[in-house]
Amino acid sequence: MVEIAVMGYGVVGTGVIEVLAKHAEGLTLRAHEAIHVKYVLVRRDFPNPPMMGTFTKSFDQILEDPEVKIVVEVMGGLNPAYDYVRRCLLAGKSVVTSNKELVAAKGADLLQVARDKNVNFLFEASVGGGIPIIRPMSQCLAANDVVGVAGILNGTTNYILTKMFRDGTDFQSALKQAQELGYAERDPSADVEGADACRKICILASLAYGRHVYPEQVHTEGITRITLADVEYAETWGGVVKLIGEVKRTPDNRVSCIVCPMFIGRESQLANVDDVFNGIMVRGDVTGDVVFYGKGAGKMPTASAVVADVIDCVKHLKARKYLYWSDGDPDYVEDYREASRIFFVRAHAADADAAFEKAAAAFPGASRLHRKQAEPGEFAFVTDHLQEKVCDEKLAQLQKEGLTVDSRIRIGEM
Amino acid sequence: MVEIAVMGYGVVGTGVIEVLAKHAEGLTLRAHEAIHVKYVLVRRDFPNPPMMGTFTKSFDQILEDPEVKIVVEVMGGLNPAYDYVRRCLLAGKSVVTSNKELVAAKGADLLQVARDKNVNFLFEASVGGGIPIIRPMSQCLAANDVVGVAGILNGTTNYILTKMFRDGTDFQSALKQAQELGYAERDPSADVEGADACRKICILASLAYGRHVYPEQVHTEGITRITLADVEYAETWGGVVKLIGEVKRTPDNRVSCIVCPMFIGRESQLANVDDVFNGIMVRGDVTGDVVFYGKGAGKMPTASAVVADVIDCVKHLKARKYLYWSDGDPDYVEDYREASRIFFVRAHAADADAAFEKAAAAFPGASRLHRKQAEPGEFAFVTDHLQEKVCDEKLAQLQKEGLTVDSRIRIGEM
Repeated sequence: MVEIAVMGYGVVGTGVIEVLAKHAEGLTLRAHEAIHVKYVLVRRDFPNPPMMGTFTKSFDQILEDPEVKIVVEVMGGLNPAYDYVRRCLLAGKSVVTSNKELVAAKGADLLQVARDKNVNFLFEASVGGGIPIIRPMSQCLAANDVVGVAGILNGTTNYILTKMFRDGTDFQSALKQAQELGYAERDPSADVEGADACRKICILASLAYGRHVYPEQVHTEGITRITLADVEYAETWGGVVKLIGEVKRTPDNRVSCIVCPMFIGRESQLANVDDVFNGIMVRGDVTGDVVFYGKGAGKMPTASAVVADVIDCVKHLKARKYLYWSDGDPDYVEDYREASRIFFVRAHAADADAAFEKAAAAFPGASRLHRKQAEPGEFAFVTDHLQEKVCDEKLAQLQKEGLTVDSRIRIGEM
Repeated sequence: MVEIAVMGYGVVGTGVIEVLAKHAEGLTLRAHEAIHVKYVLVRRDFPNPPMMGTFTKSFDQILEDPEVKIVVEVMGGLNPAYDYVRRCLLAGKSVVTSNKELVAAKGADLLQVARDKNVNFLFEASVGGGIPIIRPMSQCLAANDVVGVAGILNGTTNYILTKMFRDGTDFQSALKQAQELGYAERDPSADVEGADACRKICILASLAYGRHVYPEQVHTEGITRITLADVEYAETWGGVVKLIGEVKRTPDNRVSCIVCPMFIGRESQLANVDDVFNGIMVRGDVTGDVVFYGKGAGKMPTASAVVADVIDCVKHLKARKYLYWSDGDPDYVEDYREASRIFFVRAHAADADAAFEKAAAAFPGASRLHRKQAEPGEFAFVTDHLQEKVCDEKLAQLQKEGLTVDSRIRIGEM
């Protein structure tokens, strides 16, 4: 019998208790030991006791109980989660978390403490909900060098973009529908502004290349400025708009990492990832593209990923899993303006044809796109590859010459 | 330093040596030990020595060398692979294999020997080439009950079916093209008759439900009888034809398992798996559908999966991985004729309309399909759910009444 504690009794916490109770027999078989929840840490009183474990408001009770070998952290946020998790690890307890904010901000530090104390710090549930991605990336792709990782990492924004594309619903209405269905929170900013996807790509980037990438190092744009006009142009171009988190190796052994809406060609496996689903593409130098697809969030998928990590901890109570990355560096992430990309540009001017001629002179190789319901004076085009800072300089110059840029969206090549 | 031996120096074997040599530094870092190939077992003389290791024709030399802790089996076939692998495990060596024929036929036996001897028997490369699937299924989905697994498990047949669908190429011409591109072997029967996909679904089924499913227990149909008419009807129905390997739990705790061409609706994630790619969908009771996608074969992806298993063995030389299933049973797999499905039927008669009326009377709820280039007298329809044996009885009766059934294809619901 292994005693564990669950810190947090919100959506994921109750799910974890449910999975542990419902699947107790099978889990014992798989873990080769019974798993018992000794404590559930809560901040306020609950009327009904949990299915397993005893409610406590005292973190110290958990910390100081030598019987508790594994602690599940599903409180979310950095405070007090970071302090609690760190002290649990220092006390020789393994920790499992679903807290992407914590891992993205403090992963390197916590992995170092876990290594020093010879315990496990596992976080499969922090990316992709129930989709196995952390473990396959760290283990199965061990014999690959990762060329890049690109993913649709946030279900809420993907639902909104799918609605816009399929039904021609505008952003605000699609967001409202997502909120009504419970896919988006009342304050949707962490989703629609890209912060959630940013945390996840930071975790994947850190894992893929062995050094911590911090959220504040990653240029992040959300989807709030995507209009139906952009979505229509994506379609005529031959693709869709998706919120993508992407990381790549640069030739000088740093990484290029960004979160932003991108045009994705229809032939890409990521183009077919719709609704609240997530899709993560890992490009290995040997395996080529491998894609992981499934529901990226939700109480039960996330809870099941947490419990799978708990089982892994039980099996490895004496043998640490080799999950590790070292600390990052302010210079480790390339300035996103240095990256060379293809861009979609939507603009307007008094004379659209003449303005496009001017734009085509500034962007050699630019190809014009058309849509049915174009506004008067509107035009759009796709550039050749060029550095982002060069693109923006050229667009600024064109604006001085009387053209108004309404939208500039990166084109993904994955 | 860990000494290993590689048995077999064909396509995968040379790939394994290449990956080990090319990535030596990174692998050492990941495995926390240098990996050294001491022997390469060959059956004939090679003019040039391998990049690592010494050629030997003596299996006993490997078996009797106590320094060799891990043996890689990439010979293929059952003979002598089964005997060699078994004796290596009995001698206390861990074994990594890419040999799906071996795992599908002898997995339960070899896993038992490995367990008895407290060593590892790993075979990630046996299914899905470089796509991680064995490990995610056994570990990450540990907190799920698997409702079912369905996959496009053979790249050769998927290439052929994609060609037929996209370009209207007939089966024989598409096969010829696949052979010219090196995707199909000169004797393509193991691919096109379904045996290869059958071995893979047996491995996945055994893993998913913990009991061995043997290839001879699984009804297997290949794609040789799929015509362009069927492919066109699949399109008008709203989908594609794919060779699917499928396993599901039955209510009486047995499994239903089959390999055959199926119509797959366009909205399914498996419908977009084209060309030589594989896609495997695992339906968990908690996670819902998770899909793994990538190149399912090829020298280097397969070699990289083998090497990832070798690294895992190195890390777990003293701690066995809990990968295990018990032996099967002749009654464990349900007779495929008992399963209830939806069927597509293509037939012809002197008077197609009258014949369809008759068919619709026999199959209540049948809906007729049309295609542009229908032959005179041809008609086609899709049934409601019914047991396969009942469907076939009804069709046999209709044949007696003057209708000729040209094709009957199962419709996948995944």
